[in-house]
Amino acid sequence: MSQRSNGPYHLIYWPGIPGRGEFIRLALEEAGAEYTDTAQEEGGVQSVLSLIDKNYEGDECGPPPFAPPVLKHGDFRISQTPNILLYLAPRLGLAPDGDAIYQVNSLALTALDGLSNEPHDTHHPVASELYYEDQLEESKRRSESYRKNRLPKFLSYFERVLRPQAAQGRPWLYGETLTYADLALFQGIDGVKFAFPHALSRLEKSGEYPNVFRLYDAVKNRPRIKAYLASDRRQKYSMGIYRHYPELDDTE
Amino acid sequence: MSQRSNGPYHLIYWPGIPGRGEFIRLALEEAGAEYTDTAQEEGGVQSVLSLIDKNYEGDECGPPPFAPPVLKHGDFRISQTPNILLYLAPRLGLAPDGDAIYQVNSLALTALDGLSNEPHDTHHPVASELYYEDQLEESKRRSESYRKNRLPKFLSYFERVLRPQAAQGRPWLYGETLTYADLALFQGIDGVKFAFPHALSRLEKSGEYPNVFRLYDAVKNRPRIKAYLASDRRQKYSMGIYRHYPELDDTE
Repeated sequence: MSQRSNGPYHLIYWPGIPGRGEFIRLALEEAGAEYTDTAQEEGGVQSVLSLIDKNYEGDECGPPPFAPPVLKHGDFRISQTPNILLYLAPRLGLAPDGDAIYQVNSLALTALDGLSNEPHDTHHPVASELYYEDQLEESKRRSESYRKNRLPKFLSYFERVLRPQAAQGRPWLYGETLTYADLALFQGIDGVKFAFPHALSRLEKSGEYPNVFRLYDAVKNRPRIKAYLASDRRQKYSMGIYRHYPELDDTE
Repeated sequence: MSQRSNGPYHLIYWPGIPGRGEFIRLALEEAGAEYTDTAQEEGGVQSVLSLIDKNYEGDECGPPPFAPPVLKHGDFRISQTPNILLYLAPRLGLAPDGDAIYQVNSLALTALDGLSNEPHDTHHPVASELYYEDQLEESKRRSESYRKNRLPKFLSYFERVLRPQAAQGRPWLYGETLTYADLALFQGIDGVKFAFPHALSRLEKSGEYPNVFRLYDAVKNRPRIKAYLASDRRQKYSMGIYRHYPELDDTE
């Protein structure tokens, strides 16, 4: 099992938020993999800062990362959320063999685009370096567009992917078993549920996306995921990608 | 050469703009691969529309794509720009063997984030379904942030990746030969040069990113790329990701 070599995995990510690191954690947790996490370490933030320092030019482990999350595995270090998932998935049994992984990867990338990247921009539509309060009006407009147009568009898309699967008795986005795309869709929905609870309640009650919310529940009830979510390894939502500002949500 | 099987490649993308399809075209062109392109076909737009139709649930070739570009190769169909590049790169000789492809992939994803996804949002910061004119003031603020903060941050990052490479006499982002990450960086810079000519001229003249602009020139002068850029297969910039609105650029 050469794919299992190089020992435990090490996740380097900001402590105190689930953020983009959460997509990686869920893969590691679902697989029961051995890993360490800077979110659990004293001074973990320093590990992040030293890797993204403006003078750091990389080393024998790899080029410098642009931003966390970063995965270190033995002396191999990579960054970019979808890239880390792609590296882990075959090693953790979370992707099919052969070219089918590209099908799963396109679904995972779409979940990350629509349910992680776009939610970030709902509270930072003008500039990521400015405070939310300095782009409040723009955030309201962008959030309305997200809740009314973009989010339903993404949910409809995944419902459409899931419908022929469900007709064959399969609850997952691709193939017969859970993949990292399912974990990405779960976490994306969980994040937007935190950020926009009224909007998500409306969308769930509409009955237009039954398979999407069924998949969400199915992932949430996987034994290892359930145990993980109840543990203190799960970071609480706060001021990361997913933020709850009542003024950005549906009014009721 | 099983990786060369399944015949020519077929790119399905909006005609009339380089857009995200251009990252795929450059990989195919640099490799001298045999391919067809809906941008060159009568009624090519219908090929795109039928794949993203809200009732299309996919078929034996793959799940439905969320958006173009889409690549068809034999009876295998995938979507998402970085995913298509990842599929093509080993087949076209544009990525190193083994796990090093994950290093290249992180660099390509970063180039696509900073020089393709973020430029799109400079003219659509509030809502992708609204007209530019309905988000003009927000576009000005977002563009200023992009020109002054985000774009220099990405260029600094790539300069930092390139510096130790240059010290070894290597012009490319990773390893000794050109990869698809270099093509992605080239096209991203070419796009922002079109969108923000004054800003890019300022950044180039600053002398802070010599290796980035050297890589840009090196890709532009690759024999196949040079011939391609001069051909009518190269789509002209217009109203896609990269748009030139003088009011969003530096004032001089």
